[in-house]
Amino acid sequence: MLVPMIIAFGVIALLIAGWFTLQIQKIQISEVTDSNSASKMELISRAISDGAMTFLKVEYKYISVFVVIFTVLIIVLLDDPHTPFNDGLFTAGAFVFGSIISLVAGYFGMKIATQTNYRTTIKSSKSLAEGFKTAFLGGSVMGFVLVGVAVLGLIFTVMAYTNFLAGNDTHYIMEVVAGFGLGGSSIALFCRVGGGIYTKAADVGADLSGKVENSIPEDDPRNPAVIADNVGDNVGDIAGMGSDLFGSAAEATCAALVIGASATAIAGNMDALIYPISILAVGIIVSIVTMFFAKVSKESDVEPALKNQLLISTVLMAIAMYFVTDKYMVAEFTVLGKSISAMGVYWSFIAGLVSGMVIGYITEFYTSHTYKPVQEVADSSKTGAATNIIYGLALGYKSTILPVVFLCATIIIAYSLAGMYGISIAAIGMISTLATALTIDAYGPIADNAGGIAEMCEFPDEVRDRTDMLDAAGNTTAAIGKGFAIGSAALTALALFAAFITRSNLSEIQLLKPWVFGGLVFGAMLPYWFSAMTMKSVGKAALDMVEEVRRQFTKMPGILKGEQEPDYASCVDISTQAALREMIGPGILVIFTPILVGYGFGTEALAGVLAGSLASGVSLAISSANSGGAWDNAKKYIEKGDLGEGHKKGSDTHKAAVVGDTVGDPFKDTSGPSINILIKLMAIISLVFAASIASKGGILLHLF
Amino acid sequence: MLVPMIIAFGVIALLIAGWFTLQIQKIQISEVTDSNSASKMELISRAISDGAMTFLKVEYKYISVFVVIFTVLIIVLLDDPHTPFNDGLFTAGAFVFGSIISLVAGYFGMKIATQTNYRTTIKSSKSLAEGFKTAFLGGSVMGFVLVGVAVLGLIFTVMAYTNFLAGNDTHYIMEVVAGFGLGGSSIALFCRVGGGIYTKAADVGADLSGKVENSIPEDDPRNPAVIADNVGDNVGDIAGMGSDLFGSAAEATCAALVIGASATAIAGNMDALIYPISILAVGIIVSIVTMFFAKVSKESDVEPALKNQLLISTVLMAIAMYFVTDKYMVAEFTVLGKSISAMGVYWSFIAGLVSGMVIGYITEFYTSHTYKPVQEVADSSKTGAATNIIYGLALGYKSTILPVVFLCATIIIAYSLAGMYGISIAAIGMISTLATALTIDAYGPIADNAGGIAEMCEFPDEVRDRTDMLDAAGNTTAAIGKGFAIGSAALTALALFAAFITRSNLSEIQLLKPWVFGGLVFGAMLPYWFSAMTMKSVGKAALDMVEEVRRQFTKMPGILKGEQEPDYASCVDISTQAALREMIGPGILVIFTPILVGYGFGTEALAGVLAGSLASGVSLAISSANSGGAWDNAKKYIEKGDLGEGHKKGSDTHKAAVVGDTVGDPFKDTSGPSINILIKLMAIISLVFAASIASKGGILLHLF
Repeated sequence: MLVPMIIAFGVIALLIAGWFTLQIQKIQISEVTDSNSASKMELISRAISDGAMTFLKVEYKYISVFVVIFTVLIIVLLDDPHTPFNDGLFTAGAFVFGSIISLVAGYFGMKIATQTNYRTTIKSSKSLAEGFKTAFLGGSVMGFVLVGVAVLGLIFTVMAYTNFLAGNDTHYIMEVVAGFGLGGSSIALFCRVGGGIYTKAADVGADLSGKVENSIPEDDPRNPAVIADNVGDNVGDIAGMGSDLFGSAAEATCAALVIGASATAIAGNMDALIYPISILAVGIIVSIVTMFFAKVSKESDVEPALKNQLLISTVLMAIAMYFVTDKYMVAEFTVLGKSISAMGVYWSFIAGLVSGMVIGYITEFYTSHTYKPVQEVADSSKTGAATNIIYGLALGYKSTILPVVFLCATIIIAYSLAGMYGISIAAIGMISTLATALTIDAYGPIADNAGGIAEMCEFPDEVRDRTDMLDAAGNTTAAIGKGFAIGSAALTALALFAAFITRSNLSEIQLLKPWVFGGLVFGAMLPYWFSAMTMKSVGKAALDMVEEVRRQFTKMPGILKGEQEPDYASCVDISTQAALREMIGPGILVIFTPILVGYGFGTEALAGVLAGSLASGVSLAISSANSGGAWDNAKKYIEKGDLGEGHKKGSDTHKAAVVGDTVGDPFKDTSGPSINILIKLMAIISLVFAASIASKGGILLHLF
Repeated sequence: MLVPMIIAFGVIALLIAGWFTLQIQKIQISEVTDSNSASKMELISRAISDGAMTFLKVEYKYISVFVVIFTVLIIVLLDDPHTPFNDGLFTAGAFVFGSIISLVAGYFGMKIATQTNYRTTIKSSKSLAEGFKTAFLGGSVMGFVLVGVAVLGLIFTVMAYTNFLAGNDTHYIMEVVAGFGLGGSSIALFCRVGGGIYTKAADVGADLSGKVENSIPEDDPRNPAVIADNVGDNVGDIAGMGSDLFGSAAEATCAALVIGASATAIAGNMDALIYPISILAVGIIVSIVTMFFAKVSKESDVEPALKNQLLISTVLMAIAMYFVTDKYMVAEFTVLGKSISAMGVYWSFIAGLVSGMVIGYITEFYTSHTYKPVQEVADSSKTGAATNIIYGLALGYKSTILPVVFLCATIIIAYSLAGMYGISIAAIGMISTLATALTIDAYGPIADNAGGIAEMCEFPDEVRDRTDMLDAAGNTTAAIGKGFAIGSAALTALALFAAFITRSNLSEIQLLKPWVFGGLVFGAMLPYWFSAMTMKSVGKAALDMVEEVRRQFTKMPGILKGEQEPDYASCVDISTQAALREMIGPGILVIFTPILVGYGFGTEALAGVLAGSLASGVSLAISSANSGGAWDNAKKYIEKGDLGEGHKKGSDTHKAAVVGDTVGDPFKDTSGPSINILIKLMAIISLVFAASIASKGGILLHLF
């Protein structure tokens, strides 16, 4: 009886999240003894929270418009006159439901993050351990809410549709369910891209005008862009990242549901059918247990505590899923002509789980200043910004080798064990410890915000030192999280791609056909097009921000002397407007490319485009994320004084490293992670429209 | 009778080249009236020429070792016990011949370039028109020698092997001939990569130590790295670029020969069989006629004169080939099951020819400071190096869109008109005006060197102004040339890929098979791995160069005061050693990847790798080359004062632009163009070893 178990685990996740929220809310500003700090904290925490919520509200308004338009498009395009009802209506229902669930999860995640940031500052003024615990609890609320609603949303959709559409082919029903994944993924597009532009426009703008032009430190309250920068952490690194991973979880599960249901043995067995959802559900319990191992008393504990979370949850997950698979998965079945055993499915799961962890640790190797690659980038800053950039780019390029090799190995191992079903299970395996991953991912920006608040509210230096310790570890785990996100996006896209081909009634995609090959070359270009848009957006918005800061400094000379309050709101507004304006272009590119290519040039061209964008996008995304992470930490390495005192803050070496760090910002937090969405979303759109494209697509082909 | 015509045209090319060489050699240093300048010119021109020749000699020694090893490998791996003779022996013969021809062409090209550079300075002191004529003549010698030996080498190999191997299947004979392309391409690998590292190590090193650290101008004779920098132009931009395009011509022709010979109608008709070679031969005559249109009297004539060369040669080529195709191509034939007409072949040729030109002009749009994209990059430098880098990268990414669209259109049009044969003909079409393209490509570094010599030999400022005018136009045409080179490399690789599949006896490559898809993802990563190596090599070698310059400035303080002669030779030596050392890694990666993947995991995995590296390499190469070109010209735009006087040399804006320019150097001249070689060479290696891999490959597959 897997259904009640999944529901129970989902509810437990929400209960835990609620309980943790109450714990966090018990912490009050009144605990701050210094009244000046307390009153500033009141103001600043509200400013950040208001800025984030304002952005979210406007963003959600834009998204609602998109959801309505796209819903109509689904209903119109998917209306098959041969079926007794409008297929599109059901798909559209799942789509709207998935969208709403994702929006709700994002809302709560950000709400709790903006409630936890200043409370982490409060607790950090007591001790490092308490500060850590607070930030970690806040992160885990985000993790449990998100996975909880994902699991409940998925199981609810599956149960509802198998009832509503009872009598139809299960395979067909699961395709309708895939609308849920489409919803989650579409929201992720806007939240990831919009949030990414918001946060980096604010961050780059604040750095350029503050650190570079006026030599005032980071998070200095005199910088008018400082609130926007802190809002950005919540908007981009919490809501954007969360929606991305929610999308991955929903899509990977939908791909597995669709492929699995093509096997009669699975289609006829509810437990086996919803096995993919059970992986996420089991992950909830594993993550709860793993949390008990997160104990920190001194600085050197923080990073290992976070990194061990991943290792522990991986081991527990591997053990738990052995029993679940053994009990609920049918012993032998056939998918797409390949005969598969339950243990083949289990080992595919393990392949994804382990390679996710390995990719995460490889990412850490290339982005942490504990290791040689980042130290070399730091060293190259001695000869100026140019060599820093060259070395950083070369590092990013090089860092693609091993993750890609592990990804390829996972593809080949999972396929040889369990065919395309194995690949979809490996994709879920990679993100099965999602609640843990999200906890440590969200922990980072909360700790980062806590540091900013400590600075702005004039807490004693030791408090800032503690939050810096918490934040530094968060940077490393953020890099690990990005490795996960890219790897799982690639596997998810491949599984969706396979489901799309199956659904298109194509027995094969011949690589050497001109439309396939042309599509491949075109698809491989798309991540560049997409990145060009997002990078340029950040650049443009950052320039606007710099102009605004300059304007304020000129018009209100009292700001720099600390006698006058800067106009934070106008900077928040610039980021908000830029993010909303600039997310439209990339959005159109991602959503309409598969539709135009499919209906215009047919399924084969579309298959080429999907394969090309996946293959090229993986490497571009990894290299962008890792170059960015390495530049950031190379700068931190120099600031720590590890290159020698003569190269610390203010030196030419440090200035060169700041250039790399600034270039890296949009790389690692906007263009790189957005590529995940590009490849996943194009694949799920293709899947949802597959049958329609197969019958009505290719209308321009007769021109050739 | 096409054979005598091809031979005649090839001989004409060499005669023209010889005649032009005599013209150039008539110009004597004794024409220089100032005796100080004359004696300096004697010394400096010899130093550049000696440096270049020394490098070439050592490089050729390394290459000889490689040629011997690889020859043995070919003989051993291609020995098929079922044939009466060792197949490998004949392929190896063609391979060695192709290698030698490429080396000889590179040697003469560089010899003439180092003889023309200072003569251009001499003539520029008379008038702009005479300076232009000299540099242009020098470039055209390079062009005609290279195309002449390519055409003669190809026709000789085809004639010799159809005689030696008479009685064998023509298709099989043409595969043996493909060894010639492999030879040309292997040499291109070392010359492009080695030359690219040499020139940019010297250039970046000279810039960092001279312009940035000591504020002495470019080409100042006090900079110890200045001779190495000028040698680099010859080694990289002449010999490296020439061997790359020689490789493209040889490979594209070999691909067309192999695919064409699979049609019985073509295999039985010598004229139709060697039609691909005739395209290059006709291009020689077209280029000669085009030269008459190159007239320059004032500054504003230079760039249009060069750009019109491409347009005129394209039009003439289109007309001439209509008659050649009509007369010599068989009217109807069948390739790989597709029935093809002579006019289908002609229009495929036109598709390649025109899209090459269009890609060239698009490249110009993105890299010339006449247009908005580069001006935006220049403008972004006002806020520092970071925004300059972000804008430049975004520009490069964006500049991939249109070239890729045209490339895809060419693939689809050529295929629908004439199948895979059409694609190979389109590839040749794109480089059919090679002599013209090489002329204007080689013109650039000659003019650049002329400027350096004018500076170092203390010629009057007006001379340097004239050489700068010549050089500026050369920068633009160099960008156009790179567009061509990448486009033709992609089409060539695709044609070779198709020939490889045909030869592997595979009826299909199924995209969704795990080994194919895994190979695709892995292959898409290879251009990143390769670029990581070449970028890092330039970075490392440039740092060595900076150290050496610093050492000289410290030990010999007289240098900076102009009282002491710097030690140029030690800097030349650093570039030489770095280039030779660092070309080995990328060389091994490119040469052994197809061999290891093929013999290890079989033809399907190899097909995936080839397709992935092609699709991802095209976009990475275009974006690298164009970002680099744009940064370079954004800096020039700022230097011209177009952003306002406050932003000229010495300003922070200019310094920011110099960072971009320095980062762009390895992008546009090392890593970007090297990717061409990566995708072409892996494809031709696969083709040459195809039959052997098909029968003996995949030895590790049983592990899965």
